[in-house]
Amino acid sequence: MEQKATNIYWHEGDVKKSDRERVNGHKGVCLWFTGLSGSGKSTLAVEVQNQLFERGARTYILDGDNIRHGLNKDLGFTPDDRVENIRRIGEVSKLFVDAGMIVTTAFISPYRADRDKVRDLHEEGAFVEVHVSADLEVCEERDPKGLYKKARSGEIPNFTGISAPYEAPEKAELVVVTSNATVEESTAEVIAYLEKAGYLSASNDA
Amino acid sequence: MEQKATNIYWHEGDVKKSDRERVNGHKGVCLWFTGLSGSGKSTLAVEVQNQLFERGARTYILDGDNIRHGLNKDLGFTPDDRVENIRRIGEVSKLFVDAGMIVTTAFISPYRADRDKVRDLHEEGAFVEVHVSADLEVCEERDPKGLYKKARSGEIPNFTGISAPYEAPEKAELVVVTSNATVEESTAEVIAYLEKAGYLSASNDA
Repeated sequence: MEQKATNIYWHEGDVKKSDRERVNGHKGVCLWFTGLSGSGKSTLAVEVQNQLFERGARTYILDGDNIRHGLNKDLGFTPDDRVENIRRIGEVSKLFVDAGMIVTTAFISPYRADRDKVRDLHEEGAFVEVHVSADLEVCEERDPKGLYKKARSGEIPNFTGISAPYEAPEKAELVVVTSNATVEESTAEVIAYLEKAGYLSASNDA
Repeated sequence: MEQKATNIYWHEGDVKKSDRERVNGHKGVCLWFTGLSGSGKSTLAVEVQNQLFERGARTYILDGDNIRHGLNKDLGFTPDDRVENIRRIGEVSKLFVDAGMIVTTAFISPYRADRDKVRDLHEEGAFVEVHVSADLEVCEERDPKGLYKKARSGEIPNFTGISAPYEAPEKAELVVVTSNATVEESTAEVIAYLEKAGYLSASNDA
């Protein structure tokens, strides 16, 4: 019996998110990493991306490096500006999801209300909140950028965990405790979640 | 002779733009469409995307629908807000280029200075200014959203081409004249440019 002609680039009408997901072989999704400074958000985001890329996934990371000096360079650290910072990152993450990509964001994003607003922006299932969790003492000991030291001395005011609150997620899809884990172990937890929840195949029935 | 093992997902260190471009089989680039309302920017962007998708390219379109009601919903139409509108779109287009995608923007973007700032944001060669050009009379006759009618009656103030200037590009990489062309013809012009300029292969020596 002859096989039917197949063309993975076939699309009905204009290109839609579902077309991109089919071609990419996975869903478009936002992995929203939240946690204290030094909890390992960026390190984990990079290693998750490395592994997803090796599996052929289309991925991108939004972090301080490409956002604070670009899109959000007009924003400071007032309460209003912090809210607007997260709002814009949320809106951009939505565009990447619509483009069929796995986009990871690596920002402290300490306030529950701000994160919940981003969740509400996204379609059901397209927002995965990942609490990258480490004890404050561990984070302060790691202190990769010397920020805790400056926060303790008062040089940096309103520093999350020291002089400003961190509101831990109450309904995170995933909690990754990094205090006593290797990067490899934490990465495996994220990948395992994505597999189990069906994000690494293009459709729910695949 | 045995063939060497190849793995297109191999990457040295963390995933970079060049890794994504290699896997995607084309360069990351911003196609910045500029032109009067009714010149055909959105129609052309959609058809270019359809054809690029069919060739396996990773593409996305930024337009009024996904930007004005999302990222830029806090902006109005004051001079400052118009500048900020284009700045943010430029910054987001840069993120998509870094993600290895062909991102097309479809905004009137009437001011040369604003477009030149976006050009300066991008790496050399990653910004392709496309003047989607049609005579004002043609655009006004098309008037797909009835905006020219409202502009003529004074209902919409500061309307580009009627009561506000349109500064045509002086150094656009491509001018597509749509006044007497079919969408297919205009689309072919854009695709031919991308091919000729080497954007549709992953590296210059490919």
